Amino acid sequence: MKTLGYYNGKYDEIENMSIPMTDRVHWFGDGVYDAGPCRNYHIFAMDEHVDRFFNSAALLDIKIPVSKDELKALLNDLVRKMDTGNLFVYYQVTRGSGLRNHVYPEGPANLWVMLTPAEIGDGKAPISCITEPDTRFYHCNIKTLNLLPSVVAAQHAKRIGVQETVLHRDDIVTECAHSNVSILKDGVFYSHPNDEFILRGIAKTHMIQACYRLGITVMEKCFTLDDLRSADEII
Amino acid sequence: MKTLGYYNGKYDEIENMSIPMTDRVHWFGDGVYDAGPCRNYHIFAMDEHVDRFFNSAALLDIKIPVSKDELKALLNDLVRKMDTGNLFVYYQVTRGSGLRNHVYPEGPANLWVMLTPAEIGDGKAPISCITEPDTRFYHCNIKTLNLLPSVVAAQHAKRIGVQETVLHRDDIVTECAHSNVSILKDGVFYSHPNDEFILRGIAKTHMIQACYRLGITVMEKCFTLDDLRSADEII
Repeated sequence: MKTLGYYNGKYDEIENMSIPMTDRVHWFGDGVYDAGPCRNYHIFAMDEHVDRFFNSAALLDIKIPVSKDELKALLNDLVRKMDTGNLFVYYQVTRGSGLRNHVYPEGPANLWVMLTPAEIGDGKAPISCITEPDTRFYHCNIKTLNLLPSVVAAQHAKRIGVQETVLHRDDIVTECAHSNVSILKDGVFYSHPNDEFILRGIAKTHMIQACYRLGITVMEKCFTLDDLRSADEII
Repeated sequence: MKTLGYYNGKYDEIENMSIPMTDRVHWFGDGVYDAGPCRNYHIFAMDEHVDRFFNSAALLDIKIPVSKDELKALLNDLVRKMDTGNLFVYYQVTRGSGLRNHVYPEGPANLWVMLTPAEIGDGKAPISCITEPDTRFYHCNIKTLNLLPSVVAAQHAKRIGVQETVLHRDDIVTECAHSNVSILKDGVFYSHPNDEFILRGIAKTHMIQACYRLGITVMEKCFTLDDLRSADEII
């Protein structure tokens, strides 16, 4: 298959898939997701991504209708149906179905998967960034489908010809529109603590582990726009 | 018909309708809505709701694929297909379709309508409320589909047996999870100004017009939790 869309047991090319109008995602963005790269049919850091996915769901009282092991088996199974093993592996759970009502039903949640071909860069080419005020909600530790501020930031970045947007609350840098941001300054690796203002990035977690291995001091504490501007390196 | 779901020209009972997986609402909640009551096949304050709907869309650079007059004609047309004329009339526009990408395509937006039977109370019965910190984003002046904090508040209110949640940022009351909140105190009607922290309610706008007609002083300015607690009336 060229692309794959999966919903509650059915799958097909994404463009052939359809979703019941009653899915609560349609009115509230009521769901969470996770995603990561797959290379040569191997899904990168799947255990960590699936753990985070289940954490996001639990924080919103959404019960994922499969176990972690069942989800991993499903993802591995679906990936093997693809024409290429270099993929973006995306999955989400939405809170179930019914007529529109903020209060939610006890019924089962809906499980989605989406696979699309994707190559990844080597991370060596510098990118251009801008800074913008962080106008998002106070639940950024949950990987939800309420992503309008990131959509707006991405479109604005594209219009002005940069690749990412570094967000800040007052003077404090939080994260980017689609990624974490950390700095190296005087040999210390600084990154915003994993509170409600950022998503705990898995690439960042690996990077912090690498810092410990390499003897680079890690400070998970708030840093400012001035710290960002005077950093030795922005990651 | 008992219920009606409409999507880009097709309509049926809501439970029979389905939506292409490629609709951007599925990944980002990328859309805006408006809604209001219909009594005896007459849609209440339709011009004002449709004006607000177009404003919400414009603030997110979403181009509604019909004119205001076309939308009103469509809504009137759909309402007449229903078994009852007492309805909740809901409509939304989502930013179009494609593979998941924060940056958005130029293609046409998708128009949705949903009609469900609904009666309305006379507004005379008091309701119970709680107060909660307002953890929403800074775009509450736009009626978006990014509604997770309101979902969480509604469920919590149901669990503890109250009907609404009054939200506050630090000490300042903003609005409720599904409605505006205003107070009467010493003969003055206070309500939060129409900035980025609240949605400009149409019922509230009518109420303010009534205050002017009746000679009640209106102050659209911030009021505190203490003002709320000591108010003569909370509306």
